[in-house]
Amino acid sequence: MSEDSLAEAQQSLGNPETTYPLWPPQTLGCPETSTEEVQYPLEVTYDYESVDRGLFESELTKFDRWSPLLPPLADIGLGEGQTPLIEMPSIGDWLDLDTPVFVKDESQNPTWSHKDRLNRCVVSAAVQTDARGLVVSSSGNHGASTAAYAARAGLPCIVLTAPETPPAVQRFLRTYDAAVIAIDDWHHRQETLDLITERLGYHPASTRTAIHTGHPFGPEGYKTIAYEIVTHLNRSPGTVFVPTGHAELLYGVWKGFRELGDLGVIEGTPRMIACEPAARGPLATALETDREIATVKANPTTASAIKTQTSTVRGRRAIEESDGAAWTFTEEQLSAAQTRTARGGLWQEHSGVAGIAGLLAAIDAGQTVDGPIVCLATSSGFKDGETWTAPRVDPPSISESDSNSSQAPMTARWAAVREILSTQYGLDV
Amino acid sequence: MSEDSLAEAQQSLGNPETTYPLWPPQTLGCPETSTEEVQYPLEVTYDYESVDRGLFESELTKFDRWSPLLPPLADIGLGEGQTPLIEMPSIGDWLDLDTPVFVKDESQNPTWSHKDRLNRCVVSAAVQTDARGLVVSSSGNHGASTAAYAARAGLPCIVLTAPETPPAVQRFLRTYDAAVIAIDDWHHRQETLDLITERLGYHPASTRTAIHTGHPFGPEGYKTIAYEIVTHLNRSPGTVFVPTGHAELLYGVWKGFRELGDLGVIEGTPRMIACEPAARGPLATALETDREIATVKANPTTASAIKTQTSTVRGRRAIEESDGAAWTFTEEQLSAAQTRTARGGLWQEHSGVAGIAGLLAAIDAGQTVDGPIVCLATSSGFKDGETWTAPRVDPPSISESDSNSSQAPMTARWAAVREILSTQYGLDV
Repeated sequence: MSEDSLAEAQQSLGNPETTYPLWPPQTLGCPETSTEEVQYPLEVTYDYESVDRGLFESELTKFDRWSPLLPPLADIGLGEGQTPLIEMPSIGDWLDLDTPVFVKDESQNPTWSHKDRLNRCVVSAAVQTDARGLVVSSSGNHGASTAAYAARAGLPCIVLTAPETPPAVQRFLRTYDAAVIAIDDWHHRQETLDLITERLGYHPASTRTAIHTGHPFGPEGYKTIAYEIVTHLNRSPGTVFVPTGHAELLYGVWKGFRELGDLGVIEGTPRMIACEPAARGPLATALETDREIATVKANPTTASAIKTQTSTVRGRRAIEESDGAAWTFTEEQLSAAQTRTARGGLWQEHSGVAGIAGLLAAIDAGQTVDGPIVCLATSSGFKDGETWTAPRVDPPSISESDSNSSQAPMTARWAAVREILSTQYGLDV
Repeated sequence: MSEDSLAEAQQSLGNPETTYPLWPPQTLGCPETSTEEVQYPLEVTYDYESVDRGLFESELTKFDRWSPLLPPLADIGLGEGQTPLIEMPSIGDWLDLDTPVFVKDESQNPTWSHKDRLNRCVVSAAVQTDARGLVVSSSGNHGASTAAYAARAGLPCIVLTAPETPPAVQRFLRTYDAAVIAIDDWHHRQETLDLITERLGYHPASTRTAIHTGHPFGPEGYKTIAYEIVTHLNRSPGTVFVPTGHAELLYGVWKGFRELGDLGVIEGTPRMIACEPAARGPLATALETDREIATVKANPTTASAIKTQTSTVRGRRAIEESDGAAWTFTEEQLSAAQTRTARGGLWQEHSGVAGIAGLLAAIDAGQTVDGPIVCLATSSGFKDGETWTAPRVDPPSISESDSNSSQAPMTARWAAVREILSTQYGLDV
């Protein structure tokens, strides 16, 4: 257990004067400021006066290093964080930008997505409240990450999924020994999550409110992304593009930059850009229509991990406080972003390149974007739905029988290889 | 391009007095010491006198930090290396050991396997020799990793595979824009690799000799694993268990420890344990029968990434120099290792947990193992053949229609959930 956390209390995003003790985590949103229409999440406050400024001087990156500015951590680390920030000419040149574009590759985490930073904090809270286990409602990255940290902590984990999750996702969840139950109705899943929390004493790792509030300790884990970016660049980026669903990542990363600005570690803070699929875009809608929360239609999108219908308070706050914006990208822009990112050596799932798709959308719309630009890339291409379901495409093949020509076999094979390289792959051979 | 490399020359593993200039890389093994029966690989020598001992003082882990002790690196990094070393009670307690067991999780690399360390070095060599592209013979991790670094370097990559590679692997290769050609006969693949190298000016990223010699710069990348382990533990481990096929990883990691011993950074060096599937085990066979090289039958194993039939010189040297051993594990031990590692929060493919299976085999055989123990875990569970091919297992499901009992729907659902948790998952609810 880390003993150097400077965490002090929980504070409402509905009203900063509404605070609660640090323990227990308020997992039903803010009891005082929430209304029937809008439920407000809580965040964690710290004794910032006591932060050693030396904390930010070097680039040594280990998640536990940041424990003064995190909720108390249990000793259940799996090597989360310390992901690389990679300058990607394949994106900067493509978009004809005169400022460098960096990609923060969150697929290099223990369960190959950014969610591990959140779950290190949330499962630590479960350990410290002597919970009997973890319960989470998810059909993908988040549930598997919760299950991995629960396993590491020696706690059982119950994952409530929708039916029809792909076999590989089932295997991903089961490998960490999670108890998986499929429940076909969203409201019934939420009701079951509540019952498992209240009656069985399990700690909830996903939201319990209709308007997403999530776990108050979760976005704290994402702050470490901002810390890592700043210690790498030795300055604030100009603009940060973030794949956005419930905006826990957006808010957490923003909060990290805000803290670094307040602590005087950086001059100025970046503009935060929420990147949502144009098929949905609830946060963009909320901002356009000046509403605290907006709900949109459930149009289809391949960005399955961020296809939310309802915006959140965290999303709005991050945009407002950072003088940011919400950009929506088309499915075509998302595919182009995935291809271009892989052409630079990083393969991400569709949702994972939403930040790069948002940058593309901004450039396509003629926006100027202050540099340095950072795009968060959140999850491995192995998790992409298409990886499991795309029709089998066999490569061009050369077999022994192809060599039975009048030429010597080797000569015939070599001619066939050159033909394939030239005509099918366009190589100059 | 890194200018601080202290690399000096290439040296034969057949005879240390046989040396070649650093450039060009000898990709056909040692021309002088190789025979028809045994081809000897080369390794890189350095100006060790000039190494700044401060290099090893802190744990700051970035691959490029180690450039003085690596072949010259091109600026094509993807964040390889800096993987976590995690103490795993789930393994130490399971095997009833009184020394800590650490797992080095190499799945937290850019293409989610250890191969990225090797390919950073090999593709750097291609860049620096103005090669027209990369060519590699592989049906998995190695080929995809080469393709990713080639993409990062802006070079085309040709991947020669066997037919019938799984669709997900095909997608993995194609995403980095590799030109994939399937050739059904191993000898024909090798002959084609040679032609693409010689006639088209592509740089080979896999072996060109019958007895595997590989690229002389490749295992240098794996040395960084030893450097990272030592700067983390502040000492030498007692024993290191390594998944072993062609033994490039085994030899590279050993060489790193050997260098650290020679430089006086550590007192003593670890015993290196080669871990091979019992279905094959060519290195164990070579050692038992005191042969330089042994070839074994192609018995089936799920450890697909290390199912080699013929041992290598590198493997033998690593064992001999480190006073190590080769252990073979059964398929049951491999499955048990995979399960137990995932129960600690790390999901690896079968080949990836060969090191842990080797430790289990050693304990089962009554061996004492000096601590601290480090097991290398090499690759994400998403790459496991079973992840793609295992029959679909749907989780227990609760749908609206299940609630049409005489009880209130919520009561009926809750009873069903508790029943599933209790009987199917053994939870005390």
